[in-house]
Amino acid sequence: MSYSVAVAGASGYAGGELLRLLAAHPDITITTVTAHSNAGQPLTRVQPHLRSLDHLTLVDTTPENLAGHDVVFVALPHGKSGELTDHLGDDSIVIDCGADHRLTNEGDWGKFYGGEFYGAWTYGLPELIHADGSRQREKLVGARRIAVPGCNVTAITLALAPGIQAGLIKPEDLVAVLAVGTSGAGKSLKSHLLSSEIHGSAMPYAVGGTHRHTPEIIQNLAVAGGEGVSVSFTPVLVPMSRGILATSTASLEPGVGLADVRSTWELAYAGEPFVQVLPDGEFPKTADTLGANTALIGLAVDEAADRLVVISAIDNLVKGTAGAAIQSMNIALGLPETTGLTQNGVAP
Amino acid sequence: MSYSVAVAGASGYAGGELLRLLAAHPDITITTVTAHSNAGQPLTRVQPHLRSLDHLTLVDTTPENLAGHDVVFVALPHGKSGELTDHLGDDSIVIDCGADHRLTNEGDWGKFYGGEFYGAWTYGLPELIHADGSRQREKLVGARRIAVPGCNVTAITLALAPGIQAGLIKPEDLVAVLAVGTSGAGKSLKSHLLSSEIHGSAMPYAVGGTHRHTPEIIQNLAVAGGEGVSVSFTPVLVPMSRGILATSTASLEPGVGLADVRSTWELAYAGEPFVQVLPDGEFPKTADTLGANTALIGLAVDEAADRLVVISAIDNLVKGTAGAAIQSMNIALGLPETTGLTQNGVAP
Amino acid sequence: MSYSVAVAGASGYAGGELLRLLAAHPDITITTVTAHSNAGQPLTRVQPHLRSLDHLTLVDTTPENLAGHDVVFVALPHGKSGELTDHLGDDSIVIDCGADHRLTNEGDWGKFYGGEFYGAWTYGLPELIHADGSRQREKLVGARRIAVPGCNVTAITLALAPGIQAGLIKPEDLVAVLAVGTSGAGKSLKSHLLSSEIHGSAMPYAVGGTHRHTPEIIQNLAVAGGEGVSVSFTPVLVPMSRGILATSTASLEPGVGLADVRSTWELAYAGEPFVQVLPDGEFPKTADTLGANTALIGLAVDEAADRLVVISAIDNLVKGTAGAAIQSMNIALGLPETTGLTQNGVAP
Amino acid sequence: MSYSVAVAGASGYAGGELLRLLAAHPDITITTVTAHSNAGQPLTRVQPHLRSLDHLTLVDTTPENLAGHDVVFVALPHGKSGELTDHLGDDSIVIDCGADHRLTNEGDWGKFYGGEFYGAWTYGLPELIHADGSRQREKLVGARRIAVPGCNVTAITLALAPGIQAGLIKPEDLVAVLAVGTSGAGKSLKSHLLSSEIHGSAMPYAVGGTHRHTPEIIQNLAVAGGEGVSVSFTPVLVPMSRGILATSTASLEPGVGLADVRSTWELAYAGEPFVQVLPDGEFPKTADTLGANTALIGLAVDEAADRLVVISAIDNLVKGTAGAAIQSMNIALGLPETTGLTQNGVAP
Repeated sequence: MSYSVAVAGASGYAGGELLRLLAAHPDITITTVTAHSNAGQPLTRVQPHLRSLDHLTLVDTTPENLAGHDVVFVALPHGKSGELTDHLGDDSIVIDCGADHRLTNEGDWGKFYGGEFYGAWTYGLPELIHADGSRQREKLVGARRIAVPGCNVTAITLALAPGIQAGLIKPEDLVAVLAVGTSGAGKSLKSHLLSSEIHGSAMPYAVGGTHRHTPEIIQNLAVAGGEGVSVSFTPVLVPMSRGILATSTASLEPGVGLADVRSTWELAYAGEPFVQVLPDGEFPKTADTLGANTALIGLAVDEAADRLVVISAIDNLVKGTAGAAIQSMNIALGLPETTGLTQNGVAP
Repeated sequence: MSYSVAVAGASGYAGGELLRLLAAHPDITITTVTAHSNAGQPLTRVQPHLRSLDHLTLVDTTPENLAGHDVVFVALPHGKSGELTDHLGDDSIVIDCGADHRLTNEGDWGKFYGGEFYGAWTYGLPELIHADGSRQREKLVGARRIAVPGCNVTAITLALAPGIQAGLIKPEDLVAVLAVGTSGAGKSLKSHLLSSEIHGSAMPYAVGGTHRHTPEIIQNLAVAGGEGVSVSFTPVLVPMSRGILATSTASLEPGVGLADVRSTWELAYAGEPFVQVLPDGEFPKTADTLGANTALIGLAVDEAADRLVVISAIDNLVKGTAGAAIQSMNIALGLPETTGLTQNGVAP
Repeated sequence: MSYSVAVAGASGYAGGELLRLLAAHPDITITTVTAHSNAGQPLTRVQPHLRSLDHLTLVDTTPENLAGHDVVFVALPHGKSGELTDHLGDDSIVIDCGADHRLTNEGDWGKFYGGEFYGAWTYGLPELIHADGSRQREKLVGARRIAVPGCNVTAITLALAPGIQAGLIKPEDLVAVLAVGTSGAGKSLKSHLLSSEIHGSAMPYAVGGTHRHTPEIIQNLAVAGGEGVSVSFTPVLVPMSRGILATSTASLEPGVGLADVRSTWELAYAGEPFVQVLPDGEFPKTADTLGANTALIGLAVDEAADRLVVISAIDNLVKGTAGAAIQSMNIALGLPETTGLTQNGVAP
Repeated sequence: MSYSVAVAGASGYAGGELLRLLAAHPDITITTVTAHSNAGQPLTRVQPHLRSLDHLTLVDTTPENLAGHDVVFVALPHGKSGELTDHLGDDSIVIDCGADHRLTNEGDWGKFYGGEFYGAWTYGLPELIHADGSRQREKLVGARRIAVPGCNVTAITLALAPGIQAGLIKPEDLVAVLAVGTSGAGKSLKSHLLSSEIHGSAMPYAVGGTHRHTPEIIQNLAVAGGEGVSVSFTPVLVPMSRGILATSTASLEPGVGLADVRSTWELAYAGEPFVQVLPDGEFPKTADTLGANTALIGLAVDEAADRLVVISAIDNLVKGTAGAAIQSMNIALGLPETTGLTQNGVAP
C-alpha cells in the first residue's frame, strides 16, 4: 500500500528536502504541498531541483488542505507550527520539523522561544540512548505526534550521549563548537546570509549561550542520565550550504582512556544503520554525509588537556531534519527504518 | 633611506604574502627572492598576482644569495628554516616565519616537531601582554633575530592572554576550536587539500591535542602569567582560502562578569593599532580581516555555563604570518609600527 | 535477478560516483572494486561517503579480477582504459567512462589524445538525435561495449543537437563557454586544483580550441546532421565541486525565432526522463542537477545579435559520467531506463 | 595638500570599496559618508572591515551634506544617481559609479534602463583606445563630471577594443560569456543571492541580450572604430564574491594570426600600469586581481574555429568600479594616475 502524505511549508529548504526524500520513498504518495506566499505556483518554480514532482502545485497552508492524509509533515517556523498542528486531526500522523513540540519544560520554551507553549511530542531521535540503556526508538513505535530534533542538537547529542549514559564524562563542563552550513538558517532574506557576506568567511552567531537549541541539548543529555548538564555551545557559520561539523569536548572522569571511550561509543551505536563510529585516527568531514541520513563520529582523547574530543558530522537537512523525520515516520508506521533513506553521501 | 630585503621561500603562500605587503612598504626595496624547485623562474609565473614585481626572478635559496641584505625574511618549512638561518650573517636582521625559533623548551620541540632544536628567538607578537603588564613590543626594539608566531597561536593568544594576565579566567580548562582557511596548509600537494575535497565541507585535523601549535599557545599564556595552562585545541578546515575564526572558551573565576571582562580586554588593547575589541553583542567574521593586519575580538559570557567565550578573527597570512613579520621588522628597525600595513580588510 | 558488477578505478571520483549510484540500483550486486595504488585498502578509507559499501575491499585492476561479471564499468584515465578493455571477455558488458572508445576518427584521436587508437564503441548518449530523427537509444539496446560521452560534450550536444538536426542554426559558427566544477579534473595532485587556488576564483583552461572534447562535440553534431561543424569551446573552472553550466550560442538561420526554437527543442526531448526544457524566461542553475541524472535546458534568442543562446546544466559526475553509464547499462540490459537513477537534484 | 572627499552610498559594496581605497590614498581626506536607511549609524557597524574609518558616522544622502567637497563619489542605484547629481554644485568634481551618465544615446537608455535620461559624462575608462589611436585618458584630464564604466563592460571592452581598432576582428559577430562574482549584484536582499543558492552552483542571468551593459559595450567598441558592432553577452553568476572572468571571442579577419593579435594588443597596452597582457599560453584567473586595479589579458587563436579568444580578468569592485573611479579622479586632478591604487592582487 502507499501512504498519502502532505508537506506543509513546501517552499522552504526543509520542505524541499522532505519532498526530495519522499519522492524516493517506495511506500509514499505525495498528495499535497502547501506554502504561504508561494501558494498557486507550480512546485518546480519554487523548487526547481524537484523535477519528478513537476505535476504538483502549491496550495495554501490550511488545516483543510492538510486534512485526510496518512502523514502530515510540518516544516514551518516555530510558533506557526504549533498554531497549525493544533488544528490537525487525529487521523493523521503529524511530524513537526519545527521547535514547537520539542521541549518538555515550559520555562525553557518561554526563555528561549517565547509565545504560546504547545507541549512536547514524542522526540524523533531514534538513536538517543536513555539512562536505562533503552533507545528513543521504542517510544516512536506507533507514535502519532512526533517532534523532529534541532539539527545542531542532533549533532551534539549523538556525540556525547553515550559517554553521559556510561558515566565516562562530566556533564557539567561540556563545550561544543559547530561549523554549520547556511541552509539551516532557511531562505529568509537577511543581509548576513547573502552569498557575498558568507563566501570566504567564518562568522559566529548566538554567542554566549543564547542559541535556542541549548535547552534541547541539555534535555537530551538529561534523558541519557546526565545530572547538572552544562554546555557551552557556539555555532559558526561557514561557507557551505549543508552540513554540521560538531567539535564536542568534555572532561573525562578519572581513569577513563580512549579504549573505554571507543568501546562505549561502539556499543551504543552497534547495529545502528545511520550512526557510524569511525576507526581510531579517522575523523569525518561533512561532505561525506551530504544528502545522506548518516551521522559519522570520530573519537579522540587529549591526554594533556584531559578532555574527550568527539567530532560528529551530519547533513543538517537530512539527519538533522528531513531524514530524521522520515526515519521516525518509518518507525511509527512499522516500515523498515531505513526505507527511502540512504547511508551514502554525495561526494565530492 | 630604503632597506634592502630578501625573501627566502618566495614561491609559497607565506612568501607571496610577504612580497605583496613589502611591495607596498615605502621604506623597503625587494632585492632578492629565492625558491627551491622554482629557482630560475620569473616571480610572476609562480605568483601571478604580484604584478608590480614582474622584474624579479627567483634564485636558489642559499646563504650566499641571501647575504648582504638589511633584512632577510624566511618562509620555509620547519627544519629547513633553522638549517638555513644558522648560516645567515649578523649583518642582517633575520625574521623567521617558520616554527624553528618559536619554542623555548627543547622538550616541547622534540615532542611536537622533532629533529634538531635551533633555540628560541625574540617572539614576534608585539601585543602579547606579559605577567608584569609589559608588552612583547619592548623586546622587539632593536631585535636582530625574530620568530613569527604560528597563525592559530596568534588567534588564541590574543583572545585569552588579557584574562590570564588579569586573573579572570582559569588557565587549566581552556578550550579553543578554530575554523581555519586552507592557505595555512601551504601549497603542498595533498589530496585532502584539493578543491573538490574542501569545497562545501568542514573537516577537523590534528584532533586530540596533537597540533604542533599547542605548546606555543601554552608558552604564550605562561608568559602572560598563566600557571598550569591546559588547552584543548581543535582546528577545523573550512572552505575559505584565508582566515581564522577562533572560538576560545574558559571557565571564569568566581564573581567575574562581562563588565570585568570587557574593561580588562579593552585596557589590554587600548591604543593597539591592530587589535580591536568590538562592542557588546558584536562579533567578527574573518572576511573583515582579509588582507589586513587586524585582529578583531568579540566577547561574551555564557552565564548558564559559567564560561567566557571569546571570538577572534585574523587573516592567517597577514596578522597570522606576513603582517606580523613586517610589524615586528618595523619595530626592530625603529620605523612607525604600522608602516606598510593596513587595518582595513578586503570585503566582501 | 541481480547482475554482478565490477568497477575498475573505484578510488577516483567517477568510480566513486558509479558506486554511489549502483548501491541504490535494485538489480545490481557490486562484487568487485579495483584500484591501482589503493589496492588492499577498505573502500571506505578511500571513499568515506560510501557507508553502505564498507564491506568491500579494493583489489588490483587486472583482467583476472574483472573477469566473470555481467557488467564491468571502467573509470580509468584515457590510454589505461583501452589497454585494459582489450583484455576483457565477451561475456561481460563493458562500459568505458574514459575517452578511449568515443572517437570514430583515428586522426582526431591522434591529434587530441595520441597513443594507440582503440576504436569507437556504441556511444552512450541515449538522447542524441540523429539526422534522420532517430535517437542513439536504439543503438544501445543489446550493446556489449559502450563508450560514455565526455561531460562537457554532453552539455553542449544536448544544448545544440536539436537545432542542428532541424536546420535552425548554422553549424559553422558555434561558440560554447562552460563554467565547470573541479571534480571533472579528478583527484590528480596538481597545484592549480588546490582549494586555495580555486576558491573565490574563475580560471579558464584549454583555451583556443585545444580541449580534447572538441572533436567529440563535432562528431555528435555531425551525427545530428551538421555539416561543416565548427565550435569555439572554452571551459572555465569555477569554485564548485560538481556541475557544468554551458552557454552555447549559434547564429540562427534567417527567419527563425524563439517560437520555432522552443517547439523544436521540446519536440526533441518530449518524453525524455532526463532532459527537460524549461519554460520561457527560466534558466537552470547547476545546483538543481546535483546528484541527479538530469540535464536542464533554457532557451533564449538574442534578436539584436541574431544568435540563439542555450543554457544547459548537468552534474558532470552523473549525467556527465556515471549516470549516463548506468542509463546506458539499463538500456543495454533491457531494464527500465530510469532504474536506480533520480531526476531530482540535491539542493540547496 | 589633501582633497576633501564625500562618498554617497557608503553602505553598499561599491561605496565600501571606494572607502577602502580612499583610506589608503595619500592625498585624500574622507570627510563625509552618506547612506539612506543606515544614516545615523557608525560606518564600521555597516562596513566592519573599514577599521581605520571608525571615527566616521553615516549621514543622510542629501545635496546639502555632499556640498563643499573637492570630490564627490556617487555609488547609488541608477536613477537615484542622476536625481542626486543634478543637485551637486560645480565646485566639486563628481564621479558617478552608477549607470546614469554612461550612455550617449537616449534611445539606448530608454530601452535598457528607462526613466529620465540624464545625459553622458566623460567616460572613466582611461585605457579605452579610440579609432584614431588616442586614449580616453586625454578626455579625463581636468574633467569635472565622470561616469565610471559598468564592470562587465570594462572586462569586455579591454579584451576586444584593440582588435576592433586595428581591424583584426569582425565587429558584427562578437560573443562574450562572463563568469561573475556576486558582489556586482550589490547588497539587495534577493533570494537568488542567498549563500545557500549561490554556493556550489553556476547560474546565468539576463540571458538573450537583455543585460543593461549591452549598449555600453557596443558604444565603447564603436568609439574604438567598430561599425555594426553586435555582441552576444551572457553573464553567469559563480560562487565567488568578487571577480569577472570574461571569455570574449570574435571571428578573425582573413589572414590574421596569433602573432598579429599579440603585437596589436601589446602595443595597445604598452606602458599601461593597470592592463597587462600575459605571455603566450598564460591566462589569468580572477583571484590574481582581487583588491587590485589590474586587468589581466590572455590571448589565443582557435585556428579550427577561426576565432580569437580573449580571456580578461578584473576585480569588479576595483578596476570594475571603485578603482576606475579613483584612477579617473587622479587623472582629473593631475595626480600620478596610480596614486593610492595597487597592481597586486590578494591571493590566494
